[in-house]
Amino acid sequence: MSSAIAGPEIERLIQLLARLPGLGPRSARRAALHLIKKRETLMEPLTTALQTAIARITVCEVCGNIDTQNPCTVCSDPRRDRSLIVVVADVADLWALERAHAVNGLYHVLGATLSPLDGIGPQDLNIDTLAARARAPDVKEVVLALNATVDGQTTAHYITDMLGDADVRVTGLAHGVPVGGELDYLDEGTLSAAMRQRTPF
Amino acid sequence: MSSAIAGPEIERLIQLLARLPGLGPRSARRAALHLIKKRETLMEPLTTALQTAIARITVCEVCGNIDTQNPCTVCSDPRRDRSLIVVVADVADLWALERAHAVNGLYHVLGATLSPLDGIGPQDLNIDTLAARARAPDVKEVVLALNATVDGQTTAHYITDMLGDADVRVTGLAHGVPVGGELDYLDEGTLSAAMRQRTPF
Repeated sequence: MSSAIAGPEIERLIQLLARLPGLGPRSARRAALHLIKKRETLMEPLTTALQTAIARITVCEVCGNIDTQNPCTVCSDPRRDRSLIVVVADVADLWALERAHAVNGLYHVLGATLSPLDGIGPQDLNIDTLAARARAPDVKEVVLALNATVDGQTTAHYITDMLGDADVRVTGLAHGVPVGGELDYLDEGTLSAAMRQRTPF
Repeated sequence: MSSAIAGPEIERLIQLLARLPGLGPRSARRAALHLIKKRETLMEPLTTALQTAIARITVCEVCGNIDTQNPCTVCSDPRRDRSLIVVVADVADLWALERAHAVNGLYHVLGATLSPLDGIGPQDLNIDTLAARARAPDVKEVVLALNATVDGQTTAHYITDMLGDADVRVTGLAHGVPVGGELDYLDEGTLSAAMRQRTPF
């Protein structure tokens, strides 16, 4: 749609919506129209929610999580096991682990993974405070919950080296068959790992 | 994600984003995180664009189009052919025809189609002003660009009856093979219509 049809304001809204992951130019138009039609029940509440989020969202100075309080809800929770730090690349990974109720410890969000090809080095990661946190007397284990990709594993090795002289266990997530997964569809690396790390039934 | 993890403000934002067409709960979380990370380049501009749209968007009193001016950009355009009115069910259809540069006339947006099963009758449509517009001396043709569904065709018949005594041609969009479409995948109704309405090559 050229900007001559529905006014530059609507065109601008569509362009910005199209930059959200999951929306393309076509679905952004549909989303804009949906918002306009649901002005009171959706467009105005969403605008208010965005304003509130802009005003209140902050990065946790302890772990790098995104929250509306600092330290974040996880770091402030007295029921969390402070001897365990789970290192993730991104807040999305933290959210995924929380949805799975997989972690009762604390987190450390790196913000990225090392990627020499993309010019991302240790100085681009939230990694200095991890070195300090992992050396705190009450910390017993650091779990590297990083993607099973080259960059993720490069980052895992870097952190393992960095924490070599610290008095902590450094562990990683298990490889294996996804729950509900079919063997026939799995790659050979996953199947080999699942076989090597087999557990008593 | 429970609201205890990232604060109720972020949870609220995710819930509202999930109500956009094309986004589900999972992609809404991803969209929220993307917005938070691109606060200055995306979240703040989007909030401003929404505020501007809320303040300025209006419905064209002539044709029912959504725009930031009234009468809308199409109705105000002096280069448009005022003898032609293209009737559409929804603003989305108007946008689709404009994207295709398929229409150089004016539009009339009904806002819905007749649907006895859903209790949508003529009084629920922006149809009274169409009767008056179609009878204006400079109007020569009314094109019913309605969906080729039962409701769309019911609406088309209703409007054809309504304009029976008006001095205008009432036409509909052609049926046929979509450009780029493969015959093998087309339904029998479309193929029959395309054969009946075949054109010289």
